[in-house]
Amino acid sequence: MELRTVWWEDDAVCLIDQRKLPHTMEVVRCTDLAAVAYAIRSMQVRGAPAIGCTAAYGMALVAQQSVALTPSALLTELVQAKATLDSQRPTAVNLAWATSRMLRRAEAVASEGVEAIKHALHAEAEAIFAEDLAMCHAIGEHGASLIPPRGHVLTHCNAGGLATAGYGTALAPIRTAFAQGRPVHVFVDETRPFLQGARLTAWELLQAGIPQTLITDNMAAFMMQRGQIDCVIVGADRIAANGDVANKIGTYGLAVLARYHNIPFYVAAPSSTIDLATASGADIPIEERDPAEVTHIAGVAIAPQGVRAAHPAFDVTPNELVTAIITERGIVRPPYLAALRQLESGR
Amino acid sequence: MELRTVWWEDDAVCLIDQRKLPHTMEVVRCTDLAAVAYAIRSMQVRGAPAIGCTAAYGMALVAQQSVALTPSALLTELVQAKATLDSQRPTAVNLAWATSRMLRRAEAVASEGVEAIKHALHAEAEAIFAEDLAMCHAIGEHGASLIPPRGHVLTHCNAGGLATAGYGTALAPIRTAFAQGRPVHVFVDETRPFLQGARLTAWELLQAGIPQTLITDNMAAFMMQRGQIDCVIVGADRIAANGDVANKIGTYGLAVLARYHNIPFYVAAPSSTIDLATASGADIPIEERDPAEVTHIAGVAIAPQGVRAAHPAFDVTPNELVTAIITERGIVRPPYLAALRQLESGR
Repeated sequence: MELRTVWWEDDAVCLIDQRKLPHTMEVVRCTDLAAVAYAIRSMQVRGAPAIGCTAAYGMALVAQQSVALTPSALLTELVQAKATLDSQRPTAVNLAWATSRMLRRAEAVASEGVEAIKHALHAEAEAIFAEDLAMCHAIGEHGASLIPPRGHVLTHCNAGGLATAGYGTALAPIRTAFAQGRPVHVFVDETRPFLQGARLTAWELLQAGIPQTLITDNMAAFMMQRGQIDCVIVGADRIAANGDVANKIGTYGLAVLARYHNIPFYVAAPSSTIDLATASGADIPIEERDPAEVTHIAGVAIAPQGVRAAHPAFDVTPNELVTAIITERGIVRPPYLAALRQLESGR
Repeated sequence: MELRTVWWEDDAVCLIDQRKLPHTMEVVRCTDLAAVAYAIRSMQVRGAPAIGCTAAYGMALVAQQSVALTPSALLTELVQAKATLDSQRPTAVNLAWATSRMLRRAEAVASEGVEAIKHALHAEAEAIFAEDLAMCHAIGEHGASLIPPRGHVLTHCNAGGLATAGYGTALAPIRTAFAQGRPVHVFVDETRPFLQGARLTAWELLQAGIPQTLITDNMAAFMMQRGQIDCVIVGADRIAANGDVANKIGTYGLAVLARYHNIPFYVAAPSSTIDLATASGADIPIEERDPAEVTHIAGVAIAPQGVRAAHPAFDVTPNELVTAIITERGIVRPPYLAALRQLESGR
């Protein structure tokens, strides 16, 4: 059975509270826009594709609950809802991508009336979800060919089923190779400060029975030096037109280390993560989160009171450090500017 | 007032329990060899020079408590005590260096009788402590000249007063520059899994009033990419004859990142950390600690039950990534094989 991260049930957007994993599996029922926005902001749901799916369901929820009497009044509500949702996490492009697509769909059927919009948006959210799941499997198919014979893969953060509609992006090639009976061993960066690796990726891999070794982020270089890592695969929150990749803080450092050790560094992401409107990584906004997430772990202070901390939630890996980008439409290699443009135009 | 990390009081080796910092300041009184060994093993005391001082006091304690009637019986006890202490932490050379020095001192005065050994060892432990403190200040004097004008220094783990008799090794040049009124800002790696940076270095710098920013280990590359780091200074647990440096896990990765960003990478350590008997880093034993320190933080599980984790406590930075080694006898630059030999022969 595949894990569902987010789903529609009884007029609510339901999601697994990822802040509670791996210790408890708790479902959050979002019955209004504020609850959906909070779920995204507070990281009850996280991972660029999963955020996109959640936002799409959120738009459908707003439409369903609306008492607007005219299509234009409903469209106005949806425009406001999109602005609210988009502002919750600035770095991931899939969020705005999903809400834009929902809004365009609403506009396309507006002439058919309010009920038509409501139906269309529910269907569109389900379509976005289904497409995301299909994209993950396609990424797995394409990416499995890149897993080296021994299959020692390092990954960072969680770009797994929990970060998507299911199956994952960075974890997809690993899952597919494992399903093909090939040797696979995943080195899982714990990914401070939010510990997505230790809490989520380790949990997913345990569920799937895929062999793994959990390490602290600062052990990755040691493992590379010892010849333990054959390739690195990470996800992405936004890929600029030139191939620069925004992803979880720590990704850039891994890319530098991989280059130093001559280890391939792959980024796995659906094409909805590619943002041709963003020229380069310098134009990607980097979300600064609460320093308390650095000074505390699970609510417990680890640093002395009064210490100043920084918390950039993402970093940008320049395209020259990226060996290839694995998308649902195939593997993209440098030079990225031309290759990504071609990929998008073929869509 | 300078912080004392370990001291002799009322026939006991006393030390600050560094596992409890920064939340509570608790003193552990070790009244026998087992307690001293446990303090070292469990990391109530940590940091290569501080471990050396603690082991020296431990040898003095064994002598004082001995009921041996002859010098040779007492020497036998001391040889056993040295073996016990040395085995607690295999990577730091200062431990065996201090116990060897204590044993040699005992042998030197053995002909004068049991009481003479007891007195000599107590005095020798105090001398080791005093010399360590003096060495730290000398490292500060030499190293301060290397702090760049803006003074943005990244450090890893805790190579501060708590890791030494006081004042620190990596933190010494920072303290000295700060005392000279020069601009200094320290970026403090939290240093998973034991969080020596977040718990100890941040605490020490707060006490000293030195400006700092706490970051997770995986943010260091981001800060370098943004031009926030002018140099890196770390301590060392052992320096091989060729200049390879064993230090806290994560150090090697920082050295690679510093090289990629053209940032000087300095190692600050007393000459007792240099081990000419160890040809290169490949010969330095790397301590593997309990994986539970990775899967848990402050006793709370962060990873799912049953996950496998690795916990190499140290790594080795090859000499070619080390810009200079700051010792109490001056700054050593490549080629290290000749320079370190010369430093030691001049001792």
